[in-house]
Amino acid sequence: MSDSLFTTDALRALFSNRARLSRMLEFEAALAQAEASVGVIPQSAANVIARQCDIANFDVAAIDGALRNAGNLAIPLVAALTGNVAAADPAAKGFVHWGATSQDAIDTGLVLQLRDALALIDADLARLAHALALHARRHITTVLPGRTWLQQALPITFGVKLAAVVGALDRHRDRMASLRGHALVLQFGGAAGTLASLHDKGLAVTEALGRRLGLAVPDMPWHTERDRLCDIAAMLGMLTATLGKLAHDLALLAQTEVGEADEPVAPGRGGSSTMPQKRNPVGASVALAAAVRVPGLVATMLSAAVQEHERGLGNWPAEWETLPQIVMLAGGALEAMADVAEGLDVHAERMRANLEITQGLVFAEAVQMALAPTIGRDAAHSLVANACRRAVAEHAHLRDILAADPRVTGALGPGAIPRLFDPAGYLGESRAYVERVLVRHPPGAR
Amino acid sequence: MSDSLFTTDALRALFSNRARLSRMLEFEAALAQAEASVGVIPQSAANVIARQCDIANFDVAAIDGALRNAGNLAIPLVAALTGNVAAADPAAKGFVHWGATSQDAIDTGLVLQLRDALALIDADLARLAHALALHARRHITTVLPGRTWLQQALPITFGVKLAAVVGALDRHRDRMASLRGHALVLQFGGAAGTLASLHDKGLAVTEALGRRLGLAVPDMPWHTERDRLCDIAAMLGMLTATLGKLAHDLALLAQTEVGEADEPVAPGRGGSSTMPQKRNPVGASVALAAAVRVPGLVATMLSAAVQEHERGLGNWPAEWETLPQIVMLAGGALEAMADVAEGLDVHAERMRANLEITQGLVFAEAVQMALAPTIGRDAAHSLVANACRRAVAEHAHLRDILAADPRVTGALGPGAIPRLFDPAGYLGESRAYVERVLVRHPPGAR
Amino acid sequence: MSDSLFTTDALRALFSNRARLSRMLEFEAALAQAEASVGVIPQSAANVIARQCDIANFDVAAIDGALRNAGNLAIPLVAALTGNVAAADPAAKGFVHWGATSQDAIDTGLVLQLRDALALIDADLARLAHALALHARRHITTVLPGRTWLQQALPITFGVKLAAVVGALDRHRDRMASLRGHALVLQFGGAAGTLASLHDKGLAVTEALGRRLGLAVPDMPWHTERDRLCDIAAMLGMLTATLGKLAHDLALLAQTEVGEADEPVAPGRGGSSTMPQKRNPVGASVALAAAVRVPGLVATMLSAAVQEHERGLGNWPAEWETLPQIVMLAGGALEAMADVAEGLDVHAERMRANLEITQGLVFAEAVQMALAPTIGRDAAHSLVANACRRAVAEHAHLRDILAADPRVTGALGPGAIPRLFDPAGYLGESRAYVERVLVRHPPGAR
Amino acid sequence: MSDSLFTTDALRALFSNRARLSRMLEFEAALAQAEASVGVIPQSAANVIARQCDIANFDVAAIDGALRNAGNLAIPLVAALTGNVAAADPAAKGFVHWGATSQDAIDTGLVLQLRDALALIDADLARLAHALALHARRHITTVLPGRTWLQQALPITFGVKLAAVVGALDRHRDRMASLRGHALVLQFGGAAGTLASLHDKGLAVTEALGRRLGLAVPDMPWHTERDRLCDIAAMLGMLTATLGKLAHDLALLAQTEVGEADEPVAPGRGGSSTMPQKRNPVGASVALAAAVRVPGLVATMLSAAVQEHERGLGNWPAEWETLPQIVMLAGGALEAMADVAEGLDVHAERMRANLEITQGLVFAEAVQMALAPTIGRDAAHSLVANACRRAVAEHAHLRDILAADPRVTGALGPGAIPRLFDPAGYLGESRAYVERVLVRHPPGAR
Repeated sequence: MSDSLFTTDALRALFSNRARLSRMLEFEAALAQAEASVGVIPQSAANVIARQCDIANFDVAAIDGALRNAGNLAIPLVAALTGNVAAADPAAKGFVHWGATSQDAIDTGLVLQLRDALALIDADLARLAHALALHARRHITTVLPGRTWLQQALPITFGVKLAAVVGALDRHRDRMASLRGHALVLQFGGAAGTLASLHDKGLAVTEALGRRLGLAVPDMPWHTERDRLCDIAAMLGMLTATLGKLAHDLALLAQTEVGEADEPVAPGRGGSSTMPQKRNPVGASVALAAAVRVPGLVATMLSAAVQEHERGLGNWPAEWETLPQIVMLAGGALEAMADVAEGLDVHAERMRANLEITQGLVFAEAVQMALAPTIGRDAAHSLVANACRRAVAEHAHLRDILAADPRVTGALGPGAIPRLFDPAGYLGESRAYVERVLVRHPPGAR
Repeated sequence: MSDSLFTTDALRALFSNRARLSRMLEFEAALAQAEASVGVIPQSAANVIARQCDIANFDVAAIDGALRNAGNLAIPLVAALTGNVAAADPAAKGFVHWGATSQDAIDTGLVLQLRDALALIDADLARLAHALALHARRHITTVLPGRTWLQQALPITFGVKLAAVVGALDRHRDRMASLRGHALVLQFGGAAGTLASLHDKGLAVTEALGRRLGLAVPDMPWHTERDRLCDIAAMLGMLTATLGKLAHDLALLAQTEVGEADEPVAPGRGGSSTMPQKRNPVGASVALAAAVRVPGLVATMLSAAVQEHERGLGNWPAEWETLPQIVMLAGGALEAMADVAEGLDVHAERMRANLEITQGLVFAEAVQMALAPTIGRDAAHSLVANACRRAVAEHAHLRDILAADPRVTGALGPGAIPRLFDPAGYLGESRAYVERVLVRHPPGAR
Repeated sequence: MSDSLFTTDALRALFSNRARLSRMLEFEAALAQAEASVGVIPQSAANVIARQCDIANFDVAAIDGALRNAGNLAIPLVAALTGNVAAADPAAKGFVHWGATSQDAIDTGLVLQLRDALALIDADLARLAHALALHARRHITTVLPGRTWLQQALPITFGVKLAAVVGALDRHRDRMASLRGHALVLQFGGAAGTLASLHDKGLAVTEALGRRLGLAVPDMPWHTERDRLCDIAAMLGMLTATLGKLAHDLALLAQTEVGEADEPVAPGRGGSSTMPQKRNPVGASVALAAAVRVPGLVATMLSAAVQEHERGLGNWPAEWETLPQIVMLAGGALEAMADVAEGLDVHAERMRANLEITQGLVFAEAVQMALAPTIGRDAAHSLVANACRRAVAEHAHLRDILAADPRVTGALGPGAIPRLFDPAGYLGESRAYVERVLVRHPPGAR
Repeated sequence: MSDSLFTTDALRALFSNRARLSRMLEFEAALAQAEASVGVIPQSAANVIARQCDIANFDVAAIDGALRNAGNLAIPLVAALTGNVAAADPAAKGFVHWGATSQDAIDTGLVLQLRDALALIDADLARLAHALALHARRHITTVLPGRTWLQQALPITFGVKLAAVVGALDRHRDRMASLRGHALVLQFGGAAGTLASLHDKGLAVTEALGRRLGLAVPDMPWHTERDRLCDIAAMLGMLTATLGKLAHDLALLAQTEVGEADEPVAPGRGGSSTMPQKRNPVGASVALAAAVRVPGLVATMLSAAVQEHERGLGNWPAEWETLPQIVMLAGGALEAMADVAEGLDVHAERMRANLEITQGLVFAEAVQMALAPTIGRDAAHSLVANACRRAVAEHAHLRDILAADPRVTGALGPGAIPRLFDPAGYLGESRAYVERVLVRHPPGAR
C-alpha cells in the first residue's frame, strides 16, 4: 500500500528526497575542500561552500519542482547552492561544483546512501541469522516431515531445515562484505569522464575527494559501466529470494492443516477486518511480496546498464528509483523476517504428530534402503511402492502391510520393522550439517 | 530521482496515500448506502457512515503507521472509521464495513483510482496522437533516410515515419476503451468471496453498490483472479513501449551528427550542470526511462497473479505499489512525449541533406529494382552491390559508377539514372499509408 | 529439462526450424502468385517459384549454418530458393522475393505459425474450461474451507472455487478471439516499410497477398510497431498466470496434510527416483514452472518493442526465440492442466472433514454476523475474537465457549448456535456465482 | 531464429540433451565408485555401473519421451541405466543410484556443465579484453567526441572509451574466478537433503564423490537454497549488459551519419535480402539481443529461487532451461563481440572530423573552465551558454563569437582562444585512465 508496509523507517529516511539531496551536498562540500587542498580553488571559497552544504538551507520541494524541466536533480541543487553561496560570499560562488558534472554528485551521493543502507541491512542479516541459529541449535533433534513437491517425503529435523537458511544468509553476508569493498567506490569524472575540466589536477582531486568521503578510488570513472550497482542489486535480489523461501516455508508450516509454526502474536498483528479468528502471517507476506517484486527490479537494473556512450539517455535515470526500491524492499523483508524469527512459535509436538498422518508412508524410503542390501535397490523400490499402494487402498498402516509380507520379514528379520518407523533412526547427517553451519554461530555469540 | 521527474502531478495526486484512503472511504460510504437501500442495515446508520467517509476526518499518517502490524490499509482505516462513526452516532458504528472484507475496499478503491487515471491517460493519448498526426500531414512529402539496423536504407517520408506511431497510439486507445469497459469492475465478495455474511442479500447489495459507484458488476468476485488488472498493466506496458520507440527515434534524430529534429526549447530545459552548449532531450529521457522500467513491473503483475486459494499471501500485496507505478510511469512518459510532440522542431532541410551523405548508396535498392525487370532481381542485386563497394572504395558517387557501366545504361537507357537518385520518385505507398492512418485524425479535428 | 516436459509435441513441431522455414516459403510462394496476379511479375515465373517453395527441397541445417554470418534466416533461405528456382527455370530466378525484405518473410511466417498455435491453444482452453465446468457443477454444494493468507477463513464450495477459474479462462478465450482478429495481420512493407520497390503496385500486391494467406491487411506495415505481438504475449502471460493459480491451488489441496484433491494416477506418473510412496503433482509442476518463466519473457517482448527507426537492431532478433517460447510454455502448461482437470480426484469427504479441524474457528465470521444485528458488527467482532482466543487456549470447541456466554445466548436465542456451525448455512452466493459463470458452459455441452 | 545465431556451437553442444544426460551419468558413475570406496556398495557392482554410464549406451530420444510423465529426466535415466546394468550383471543392478535422489544427479550434472561452460566463457572474455586493450593502447591519443544523452559533449579519446569496457570485463573475470571457486559445488543430499539413506556414511560418500568429480563439498546440500546458481546467472547478466553497452556504442559509431567504426567485413556478412549497399552490424545485433533477453531470464532465476520446503514444485523445473539459456546467450554475445573487436575498423580521421561539425560547441566547457578562474564558474557558464546560442542562431563558429566578446578576450588574453579549440589540450586524465586499466594487459601479453 504504502512504503511503510514494505520497508523500514530507517531505510525510508535514508532514501528520502531530503536525504538524497543531503548526500549530494556532502559530495559538493567534499569536492570543494578536496580541490582547495590541492590548490585548484581557494581555501576560503571552499570553506564558504562547505558551510552552505547543509540541507537545512534548501527548499527541497522547490528543487524537486524544477526537476522535470532540468532532467536531473543536480542541476537545480547546484543552482540553489550557487545562490546560497553567493549570498554568503560573492567571491566564492564561482567555485561551486568546480570541474564536476551532475552525474558525479548523483552517483556518489547514491554510493553514500548505499553505504549506510548496506550497514543497516548487514546488521539485520546478523540478527536474523542469529535468531535462526538459536532455533536450529534448540531443534537439532526435533523431527518433522521433510517435504518435496509439497508432499511428505521422509523425516528431517527442524534444525537442519533452518540451518540451510542460515548457511545461505551467511553466504549473503560474505557477498555483502565483498561488495562493500569493491562496489562502493567514488564516481568522479566530470562532463564526459576525463576530468578535462581539472587539467592535470584530476587524479589529485580524485584522491583527496575519495579520502574525504571515505570511498575507494577506482581505476577510472564508471559513469556508463554500471556493473558495481548491478552487483549490489543482484546480491539484494538473492537475499530477498532467500527471505522469500524462509517466509514461504513458515507460511506453509503455519497453514491451519499443518500447524507446525506460527508468527509471533502481538496485539492487532495479523488480524482480519472481518474474520475474528484470523492470525495471518503478515511478516511472511511482507517478505513474499518483496520476493515477487525484486526480481523484476533487478532485471530493470540489468537492462538499464546498457548505457550509451559517455552518459545513458533514459537508462541512467531508470536506475534512480529502481535501486533504492530494491534496497528498501530487501531491507523491509529482512526486518520482517528477523522479527518473525525472533518470536517464532515452534510446535514440535505437531511436527512429530504430522509424521504419523500417512500411516507410515513417510518411512517408505527407510524401509526400501533397509531391504536394498538384500534384494537390491530397484527390487526394494518396487516392493515398497506396491506396499504403499496397498496401504492407501486398504487404509492400513504400511508397517502392517510389510509385516505380513514374508519377503520383507525374511530379508529384515522379525524385529526390524518397528525400528524402521522411528524417525530418530533415519536422520542421516542432519546433526552434522547443523553443526557445520553453526560453526559461524557459536553458542552464546551475538 | 523523485517521482516528479517520471510522472505527472495529477497522477501523483491520484495515487497518493490520501487519495487511496479517500477512494476506500468512497467504497465504504457506497456500501453502507447500498445495504440500506436493500434493507440490510438501517438507513439512518448508512447516512451517518456515509457522512463520516470524508478523508478530512482522518489522520492519514496514523493509519499508515498502523499498517505494518495490520498487514493492509483497510484494517486501520475501518478501525478509524468505526471510531469516528461511534463518536457521531453510537447506534451506527456497528454497521460499518458490514459484510465486507479488506480486499473489497482495497480492490474497489484501486479500480476507482484506475478509472480516473485511465481517463487522464486517454486524454493525453489523444493529445499526442493529434500532435503527431498534424506533423504527419504537414510532412507527408518530407523525405529523410529510412534507417534499418541503424544504417541508412532508402528514402522514406517523415509523414510515414510518424504515421506508424499514430497507428499504434490509436490501437492503444482502442485497447484502453475496451479495458475501461471490461476491466474496471466492482470487487465485492466478503471474507472468502461468497458474500456469506450477507446471506441471501449478497447479489442485491452487489447490484446496488455497483450502481452507486458507477462500476459494472462481474459474474462473480475476482479476489484471486487478477487477469483484469494484468490486462491494464499489459496495455500500459505496450503504450510505454510505443512511447519509448518514439522517444528513441527522436533522440537518434536529435544526435549532433544527424540533427533532423529537436525537442522544444524552454528556459532551463535540458541544460547541463557543466556543459554550456547542451540541449539534452529530457522528454525522450523520461519516456525511455519508463520504457526500461515498466516491462519488469508488468512481469511482476503477472508473477503476482498466481494467488493462493481465496486470498494471496505475498502476491496480492505485491500489486499494491506495482500497478500504480506502472500507471504513473506510463502517464508520465505520455505527458513528456505529448509535450515534445507539440513543440517538436523538425529540420526538413537536414533530413533532405542527410540523404546525400552516402554518395548515392541510399538509392541502391531503387537502382536494383529498376534493373531487375531486365536482368533479374538477383543479378541486379549483385551488380549494384559490387557498384556500391566500388563507390565506397573509390570515394565516388554511386551514380557515376553506374553511369560508366554499359550493363546499366544498356538496361535502363541513358536518361534513367539521374531519376533513380531522386528520393521523391521512390516513396512507394508512403502517402497512402499516411492517409489511411489519418482517417481517424481528419484535418481540423481535435 | 528439455522442451518435451514443458510443451506439447504439436507446438514443438509448429515452432521447429523446419516449420519456421516452411512458413517463410509459404510467404514467398504467395508473394510470387500475388505479384503475378496484379501483373508485377510473370505468371510463369510465379508458378515456378511457388512450386519450389516446398521445405522438402531445402537443407534446413545448411540454412541454419549460414545464419550467424547473415544475421537473419531469410537471407540464406532466399539465396537457397533462388538457387532452386534457377535450376528449375533460369528465367524465373530473377523474380524470387520480388520487392520484399527479410522482415516481411520472417514476420509474416511468424504470424502464420501463431495462427495455428493459437488455434491449438484455444482448443485446449475449451477442453480445460469444460472439464472444470463439469467439476464445478458436480461440486456446486461440496463444502471445503475457503482459505485466505493460507489460513482457513470460512466455508465455501468447491464449485465456486472452480467457477472463478472457469470465468478467467472464458475471459482468456474472449481475449484470444479478439486477438486472432486484430493481431494476426500481414506484414509486408519492403526494405523500409514503404513498398517503394513495387512503385504504384504496393497496395494491390498487399491486398492479393493478404487474400492468399488468409490474413487481414493492416493500415500500414508494422515492422517496428510491435504492439500486436506484445498483445499476444501478454494474453498468453495472463493465461499462464491463471493456470499457475489453478495448479498452485490444486498442489496445495494435494498436500499430505490437506488431502482434498489429487492429480490423476497413471503408471510411472509422478514417481520419485528414490521414494516409493511418492505421487508428485507433475502436471501442476509444469504449469507452475511456466508461470515462473513466462512473466520474464513477456517483459522481454515489451523491452524488445522499443525498436529503432525502420528496423530494430538487437531488439527485433530478441523476439525470435522469445515469443515462440511464450507460446510453447503457455500451451504446455495448458495441456498439462487440461489433463489434470479431466482426471482430477476430488476428495469431498476430506474437504468436509477439514472444516472440523479448527474446532469451530472457521465459523467465527458466521457467528459474528449473526450477533451483529443485535450488538453491532464491531462489538460482535471483539466478542468472537476473544472467544476464539479462549477456544485455542483451552483446546475447546468455539461452539462450547459461545454457548457458555450469556451475551451470545441472549442475543441469538438458545437453539441458534448449532446452526451457525453448519457450513451449508453460510455459503452466501456460491451457488448463484457458479450458475452465472456456467451459463457459458451449459450441461451436456462440449 | 535458431540458437545458432545467438550462441556458439561449443555451448550448444555442452547444453544439448545428450550432454546433459552424459553429465548425469558421470554423477552416477562417480557415486557408485565413491560408495564402493567407503564400503557402501560392492566394488564389483560399482565397476559394472561405472562402465555402463556411457551415453552411447542410451536412447536419448526415448528418455526424453518419458519425461513428461516422470516429471524429471533423472527418473527415466536411472530406469534405463538400471536396465543396462541388469543386462550386464544382474547382481549389480540393485546398487544403481544408491542413496541418491533425482535432484542430486540433475543439479550436480548441471554444475559439471557449468564448469565447462564458464571455462569457455572465461577464455572468450580474455580474448575480448585483449582485443580491446590492443585498440585502447593504439588509440590512446585518438580523439573523438564524448557523447552524453546522445549529444556531443566534449572531446575524449577512443582509448579511454574502450578502457572503460576493458575495466568492466576485468571485473567480470574476477567475479567469474570467485564464482568458479564458490558456486560450483557438489549437490548430494538424498531424498530430503539429509542423506538418511546412507545412515552414518553420508559424509564419507560425499567427500569421496566430491574428490572424484573435482567439486568442492559445501557445508550441507543446497537443494532448495539456490543462491549459488543465481550468483552465476547474475554475473552473466552483468557481463551481457557490458557486452550490450559495447555493442550499442559501436553500432552508434557505425551509423551512416557518424561513421567512426565498422564491424569487420566478410563475404556474406551483414548483407540485406533486398538492399545491395547494406553492411549491417550483425555482431552488435547478437550482443544487443542477448542484452534484451538475459535480464528477464535472470529475474526468472531469482523468482524461481523461492523453492518450497525440501524440493521446489514448479520453481526448480523453472531453472532447467533458464540457466542454460543465460549461459548460452551470454557466451554467444561474448563470442560475437570478441570477433567484432578483433576485426574492428576504426576510422580515426572521421572521429577527428566529427569534432568539427558543431562549429566549436563541443569545446564550450573548455572555454568555460578557462574563463572560470577569472569570472567564476557560474558566470562563465552563462556567458558561454549565451555564446553557444548565438553561434547556433547565426551559424557562426563559437570561436568567432567568443573572439568578438571583450569579456572573453579580456579574461583570457588574445592568443588563448584558438588553443581552447584544440581537443588534444582538453583530455584530462584520459591517458592516465587507460594506463591504469591496462596494467592488467601489458603490451605483448596474451
